[in-house]
Amino acid sequence: MTETNKPAPGMNRRGFLKAGLAAGGAAAFGGAAFSGAAGAGESDPLITEVQDWNRYLGAGVQAAPYGVPSAHEAHVVRRDVEWLTASTESSVNFTPLHALDGIITPNGLCFERHHGGVADIAPADHRLMINGLVDKPLVFTMADLMRFPRENRVYFLECAANSGMEWRGAQLNGCQYTHGMVHCVMYTGVPLKTLLDEAGIKTNGKWVLAEGADAAGMTRSIPMEKALDDCLVAFKMNGEALRPEQGYPLRLCVPGWEGNMWVKWLRRLEVGDEPWQQREETSKYTDLLANGKARRFTWVMDPKSVITSPSPQMPIAHGKGPLVVSGLAWSGNGRIKRVDVSIDGGRNWTTARIDGPSFSKALHRFYLDIDWDGSDLLLQSRALDEHGFYQPTKNALRAERGENSIYHNNSIQTWHVKEDGTVENVEVS
Amino acid sequence: MTETNKPAPGMNRRGFLKAGLAAGGAAAFGGAAFSGAAGAGESDPLITEVQDWNRYLGAGVQAAPYGVPSAHEAHVVRRDVEWLTASTESSVNFTPLHALDGIITPNGLCFERHHGGVADIAPADHRLMINGLVDKPLVFTMADLMRFPRENRVYFLECAANSGMEWRGAQLNGCQYTHGMVHCVMYTGVPLKTLLDEAGIKTNGKWVLAEGADAAGMTRSIPMEKALDDCLVAFKMNGEALRPEQGYPLRLCVPGWEGNMWVKWLRRLEVGDEPWQQREETSKYTDLLANGKARRFTWVMDPKSVITSPSPQMPIAHGKGPLVVSGLAWSGNGRIKRVDVSIDGGRNWTTARIDGPSFSKALHRFYLDIDWDGSDLLLQSRALDEHGFYQPTKNALRAERGENSIYHNNSIQTWHVKEDGTVENVEVS
Repeated sequence: MTETNKPAPGMNRRGFLKAGLAAGGAAAFGGAAFSGAAGAGESDPLITEVQDWNRYLGAGVQAAPYGVPSAHEAHVVRRDVEWLTASTESSVNFTPLHALDGIITPNGLCFERHHGGVADIAPADHRLMINGLVDKPLVFTMADLMRFPRENRVYFLECAANSGMEWRGAQLNGCQYTHGMVHCVMYTGVPLKTLLDEAGIKTNGKWVLAEGADAAGMTRSIPMEKALDDCLVAFKMNGEALRPEQGYPLRLCVPGWEGNMWVKWLRRLEVGDEPWQQREETSKYTDLLANGKARRFTWVMDPKSVITSPSPQMPIAHGKGPLVVSGLAWSGNGRIKRVDVSIDGGRNWTTARIDGPSFSKALHRFYLDIDWDGSDLLLQSRALDEHGFYQPTKNALRAERGENSIYHNNSIQTWHVKEDGTVENVEVS
Repeated sequence: MTETNKPAPGMNRRGFLKAGLAAGGAAAFGGAAFSGAAGAGESDPLITEVQDWNRYLGAGVQAAPYGVPSAHEAHVVRRDVEWLTASTESSVNFTPLHALDGIITPNGLCFERHHGGVADIAPADHRLMINGLVDKPLVFTMADLMRFPRENRVYFLECAANSGMEWRGAQLNGCQYTHGMVHCVMYTGVPLKTLLDEAGIKTNGKWVLAEGADAAGMTRSIPMEKALDDCLVAFKMNGEALRPEQGYPLRLCVPGWEGNMWVKWLRRLEVGDEPWQQREETSKYTDLLANGKARRFTWVMDPKSVITSPSPQMPIAHGKGPLVVSGLAWSGNGRIKRVDVSIDGGRNWTTARIDGPSFSKALHRFYLDIDWDGSDLLLQSRALDEHGFYQPTKNALRAERGENSIYHNNSIQTWHVKEDGTVENVEVS
């Protein structure tokens, strides 16, 4: 793979808007005006039709105190893969990344992953206990927690198994399924450090066990250094209370680390002197290597990216000409420094434009605005984070970790864009 | 009003957490543990109760492809004021600011203001026309617009009439009603400049008329300097398609300027050499002064802030001790530089902590963490923006603009916190 970063073929940026619109369907309009406020002009069948909806009063403001999307967007929903799990209570659905833009995921579209269903918790009855190697064990009500100084932070949350099915080859046809176990919201909560300091950590307290109040009793061990760094005990996401499937009324945020550790329905934090070796950090969420040994405590989600459009669920419908290539990049190490895009399967790379906020351990939105010549493309994106870590190719990842693993597949994804604009999930050697 | 910025009475920050928790209801817990993964301990009635919900499998992932809030949050909805408007189609409801945190407003809670109801538009049939003093009149489909380079920006949107009822005195008891005609989301769209450049602005083109496809045919004149500066033709909010009540499928963003200009269901942009003097910029959305003359084209939303908690809808339920005073500040001029909070009706001011992102022309979240001594408070907040503009007192605003106006009330709001923790909307002289 060369590192030229020169413009790829067909990427002449100058004047593409002028050239493209002729091809792109925006009709030059010969002087007739809407019969609106600015005066009537010649009528046109098209314009007459589009004026129709201003003849009628629309719905009033009381129709939906809590608003919902347009019926025309009914296809933009989380979706599952039926054969993937045995029951809905221990299952997953996927964020429709292909249909979204920017870096904020609407709460109603954040993917779900449960091990014992969605706990139904009355917040007034919920408690958070801190026990173990602390000076003063404590039990907090939700009202207690609301009295500590708060922080607001935007973080991505990615399941360790995101893209796991792709490890052995291109299998799922759409970035919703291949990469949709990630979301990004603004959390409001109390730093975990504040609560641990309140209880007083004993000198031999080196680990924190986070335990959920769900039927699965999700429990994970977190090293004290991380617990005191940037973890949040969060009660709001995107401004409002956590959604039930995201841990209402309380979840732990473990920024940049695998989603399984972001314990939902958080009810207990125990301080100990060593990790607890829970099921979810021994039997599961370890990475089986080719030699039969497993990597353990592989917490950080490495730099990763995916092109969300065009993609298998977002084919090109408009033919040749201007094309917005858009995608997401993220790294558990910090900020994304650069994203490169290839249209020829990784032979040549062009630096994409990152647009919108760049927060540490959050999604980044990138674009490459190209002039598509109508030929086949092998679209790839490659993220580089601020600490110099690159997203690997799938073959490089396999060479290092074998093919037994499910978790922590952060390799480069390839979409095959065909001449008719349809897009397929493929592998390039 | 003095400018001391010294800590106000009762604001001793040191050690307040230790002191406060004893008063605050977090019980010291004497060694018994949950009968969970970490081993069984002595039982406790409270702990037994809170363990109950992990005995049952919760709901599965397919229950709600598009997720909704917990039933326990059913009170967090947009609300209207019944007597305020004659019909629901030309009415308003209000963002529940008191119940939110951070700076992002969830799409389902963004206030609505319509003049002819919510237009029901099929995006495939929608068109945006650019006509008037341009070299090449154009009509765009939604698909055409998706081919231009995009931007992602977080902006507040405030109705010019927000807080309008308060001009003549404290009337509405709750910040949802006094200040709830504001929201803040991340927009994705195409710069208006890009589209105008595509059509080619003639040299005498100095104004742009934005026209909506709703029954009200909302139309506003925008000076070309603003149109070419930071306006966006947006199709997404917080990542997903615009909500119907926010202009689906297309709205104009006019950052920092009054919400009425952010034309929803955008269907036409006409370039002209002077403003159009539309109803919404002559009969309405002008500010009648005491002398009978009206200020016109008062576009910018001046610096403003409000304490969202405690507030009339968010009384203090926990008694004395640690109290999080939280609020929002914003300015149509740019970033918020500082927010001061007073607990004594404006005699002394303490600088609040702004937390979370600080974007130009976006909401800012501030906190003041105090130790409440249980006495009466007269809570106020005062915003200062990066250009040195301060939020005025209500009396200062009246002295300048009289009492005839409804629009552009950005004055300091006062909440009277009583000894029992209830909060009332009051005025201080």
